[in-house]
Amino acid sequence: FQDVNHMVIFGFGFFLTFLKRYGFSSTGFNLLIIVLGVQCSVVIEELLLFLPGSKREDDMKRITKATLSLTAVVISTGAVLGKTNPVQLSLMTVVEMVAFHMSRWMHNTFLKISDNASMMHVHLFGAYFGLAASSRFSEPLPGSEKNASTPKSDLLSMLGTVFLWVFWPSFNSVLLRDKSKAIYNTYFALAVSTVTAFMLSALTTKDGKFKMTHIHSAVLAGGVAVGYAACSIKYPWIAMILGLLASVITTLGSYCLPRCLNPVLKIHDTSGVHFTFGLPSMLGALAQVVLLVIENWTDIPRLRDLVAIHIWAFFLTMDVALITGFITGFILNLKLFKTIPVSKYFEDQFYWEFPHLAVGF
Amino acid sequence: FQDVNHMVIFGFGFFLTFLKRYGFSSTGFNLLIIVLGVQCSVVIEELLLFLPGSKREDDMKRITKATLSLTAVVISTGAVLGKTNPVQLSLMTVVEMVAFHMSRWMHNTFLKISDNASMMHVHLFGAYFGLAASSRFSEPLPGSEKNASTPKSDLLSMLGTVFLWVFWPSFNSVLLRDKSKAIYNTYFALAVSTVTAFMLSALTTKDGKFKMTHIHSAVLAGGVAVGYAACSIKYPWIAMILGLLASVITTLGSYCLPRCLNPVLKIHDTSGVHFTFGLPSMLGALAQVVLLVIENWTDIPRLRDLVAIHIWAFFLTMDVALITGFITGFILNLKLFKTIPVSKYFEDQFYWEFPHLAVGF
Amino acid sequence: FQDVNHMVIFGFGFFLTFLKRYGFSSTGFNLLIIVLGVQCSVVIEELLLFLPGSKREDDMKRITKATLSLTAVVISTGAVLGKTNPVQLSLMTVVEMVAFHMSRWMHNTFLKISDNASMMHVHLFGAYFGLAASSRFSEPLPGSEKNASTPKSDLLSMLGTVFLWVFWPSFNSVLLRDKSKAIYNTYFALAVSTVTAFMLSALTTKDGKFKMTHIHSAVLAGGVAVGYAACSIKYPWIAMILGLLASVITTLGSYCLPRCLNPVLKIHDTSGVHFTFGLPSMLGALAQVVLLVIENWTDIPRLRDLVAIHIWAFFLTMDVALITGFITGFILNLKLFKTIPVSKYFEDQFYWEFPHLAVGF
Repeated sequence: FQDVNHMVIFGFGFFLTFLKRYGFSSTGFNLLIIVLGVQCSVVIEELLLFLPGSKREDDMKRITKATLSLTAVVISTGAVLGKTNPVQLSLMTVVEMVAFHMSRWMHNTFLKISDNASMMHVHLFGAYFGLAASSRFSEPLPGSEKNASTPKSDLLSMLGTVFLWVFWPSFNSVLLRDKSKAIYNTYFALAVSTVTAFMLSALTTKDGKFKMTHIHSAVLAGGVAVGYAACSIKYPWIAMILGLLASVITTLGSYCLPRCLNPVLKIHDTSGVHFTFGLPSMLGALAQVVLLVIENWTDIPRLRDLVAIHIWAFFLTMDVALITGFITGFILNLKLFKTIPVSKYFEDQFYWEFPHLAVGF
Repeated sequence: FQDVNHMVIFGFGFFLTFLKRYGFSSTGFNLLIIVLGVQCSVVIEELLLFLPGSKREDDMKRITKATLSLTAVVISTGAVLGKTNPVQLSLMTVVEMVAFHMSRWMHNTFLKISDNASMMHVHLFGAYFGLAASSRFSEPLPGSEKNASTPKSDLLSMLGTVFLWVFWPSFNSVLLRDKSKAIYNTYFALAVSTVTAFMLSALTTKDGKFKMTHIHSAVLAGGVAVGYAACSIKYPWIAMILGLLASVITTLGSYCLPRCLNPVLKIHDTSGVHFTFGLPSMLGALAQVVLLVIENWTDIPRLRDLVAIHIWAFFLTMDVALITGFITGFILNLKLFKTIPVSKYFEDQFYWEFPHLAVGF
Repeated sequence: FQDVNHMVIFGFGFFLTFLKRYGFSSTGFNLLIIVLGVQCSVVIEELLLFLPGSKREDDMKRITKATLSLTAVVISTGAVLGKTNPVQLSLMTVVEMVAFHMSRWMHNTFLKISDNASMMHVHLFGAYFGLAASSRFSEPLPGSEKNASTPKSDLLSMLGTVFLWVFWPSFNSVLLRDKSKAIYNTYFALAVSTVTAFMLSALTTKDGKFKMTHIHSAVLAGGVAVGYAACSIKYPWIAMILGLLASVITTLGSYCLPRCLNPVLKIHDTSGVHFTFGLPSMLGALAQVVLLVIENWTDIPRLRDLVAIHIWAFFLTMDVALITGFITGFILNLKLFKTIPVSKYFEDQFYWEFPHLAVGF
């Protein structure tokens, strides 16, 4: 159970190593965030026990849930990657864990949503928290080449993507009782979105070449989108359509967002968290509502309640994520935390002592 | 169950990254092939349900089997690595999955071989299908240095080999009921073939140095050879002898085949699929027959039947693999598919948009 | 069960790849040592069956135990890394497996310690065996830069560390019946020691930068220290304090030992085995005794017995490790084994045939 979870997180460490001069920091800080976050999450759950209506869970399940919650933090980190120092990251981890637990507690208490279902908002929360926070950071200098990737770092990042791909079915099914179905659906969603990612990448670039960045983000889109409804999808072809749509949306997003939306909102999204995790999870939430409508259309009053709850849950997550993310971004940029000068963005040398100068790296 | 399977396939992705300028394509196309193949395999199984005498299996088992079947495609890819474009690879995947399912269906229907046993022909099928297909591709230019490896890519490929090594026992045992015995036997076969690989490599090179290519292929030979009989071997020392023989045959093969056989048959076998998977699986099939003879020599009529079935199964697999492989190779080289000019073999830049030119890679 | 074990060992292979020109040998020889060691260990267990009072265990458990015992050899290898040829390493593996089995057999027979508890001395044994052996090797030339690391090899080594980190809880719990508690405690010890490692690294270097070497060794210290008492610790905060102390001791050790102790004893410890595994396991042994005292202080006679047994076990392990390690180091440096000249230390090219000269590697 738990090893699989660890592996999911391990994959993220390498998923984020695509920056030319930021490999050390990506991997190292990722580990730091995870251990901080899990401890923080367990402490919060411990404190939540004092609230009425909570009950103690066994140890294994608590660590598993803590690790799942952490995905939100790791996704948010992707948006501010290379622009924060470790102290800022640690603070962000703590604040985000508190905010996410608060959001989940509101789900459970006011909307009576089960714990497993509320956990699936983790991608949505992580992506929009990260985006809101990153909007408060100054943008990198336009002429800078440091936030580019090299073939080598891209290969390492591909390794991370494959890791995530392989463990995504476990991620989507770990909290459920009927694991087999969730694994099956997630697998097919991922498979279709991978094929679509390759095809779209060949179609959209000139000469029909593939672009690593597309593959990266679109490959996982299916898994994110199917997360909400993994256990309630009855036929694999529904999961497959969802994977197809998610992949299309992600690829479109990776074209439009950095050109249209980001300059307007002054957001700089280092690893494309918005289109990799944000958009597919919005699609997933929508798909869940559509599936609910199709399933329950004979029973209108019950349907209305269910749909209302899901829409409320969606907006609640978004609101909490955006508001707390914005506040966090504001706090992190106080002078107090020795913010990094823009010219030092995306630099490993700022944090790590190198044995000797690494010219060829 | 299923994670382990994924990991086997994941290992292959890195096993094939040893080409200097082909790391992106090896990893990326491998993922593409796998997702295409699994979907294709599940569709074929779905269609086979219309045939008389088939029965529905549960979802998990179907994906597991589909992934196992895929190994054939991944092995075949090794033989034509760097010489095909993604469209050709996708077509090859579909054709090979159909052919392999056909071969297995014939095993089940005509020879009454159990599903698990027929699955173990996967290495044999993959290797000879790939070789037959690669015989239709034109050979790379002799002066070309692009199909060489660098120390760095060799290290990454070693990572893949270790991955395969670690998951091979699971691979050989996943469909069996008495897993423990198969794991035990496979482990010892692998262990002996690893030691033998190091010794042989030191003995055959001048100065007693090791050669990465030998280690690569010979290390896995034991696992391939023991696959057929993993559950029926009673004493670990039989598995150990098999591992020893497999390693010797592979190392001999890696010397003789590229020099003697390949120029005659005009085959160019990029990653040495013939001696890495082909020869050890032939040895394994032979060993299975020998073990049957030893076990049942008191009961001649039964023995004759059993041996006949195994020999038939072996030749059936070989025939189907060679014939369909040859046809596939022929189809793939039609002008229709925009075959790659020989001068562009083994080039990542032909398929991938690079952020900037990678001189040092 | 067994895959997890393999992965632990797999992690070590990459943990040791930090030397600039020694990546091939680290990975390759590590695989060789493991397969040799497991076979050797199973043979020894087979022979021990002839001793009175032994009973046969099932196959899976035997491989698992053999793999755990092997950790001792892999740790020892860290101390002599780059200074031995494969023949010396193979001999060392065999001798060390015999010595470690002897030590465990003495634990079981004379001190009536359970098999699981005696297994946990593996880090202690491995570290001091390796140190004793390495004291007989001549030191590398002071001006040599070959035993330095590059950013790239450090990144690969970080990958190995993360692997070990992720699988350490499984390592500590695999032989126990109450796995859940051991996993929980190990996880928290590791988490705290990781946070401490980052903090200490920032505090001890000038400019508050991180140093990869500190992170490397201190991150795992918690896991090693908690090994002895993983199943008997009742509250996670005890494990957390242990993780904190282990991390502090390791970081202190990595400062003092190479400067004060090693020049006096003429030890050259390539990968810092002494402070990475030696000191934390001493701390763990001490912590186990302290916990015993706290738990049983009402029952003085029983307490005295228990403490005496644990102290005896500790010194027995240390003595056997140091004596056999010293003898092994002496034997390995006989002319017979073609010892490597000091100028050829840490060189891949001495053992591996390279396709072409790797200047940039």
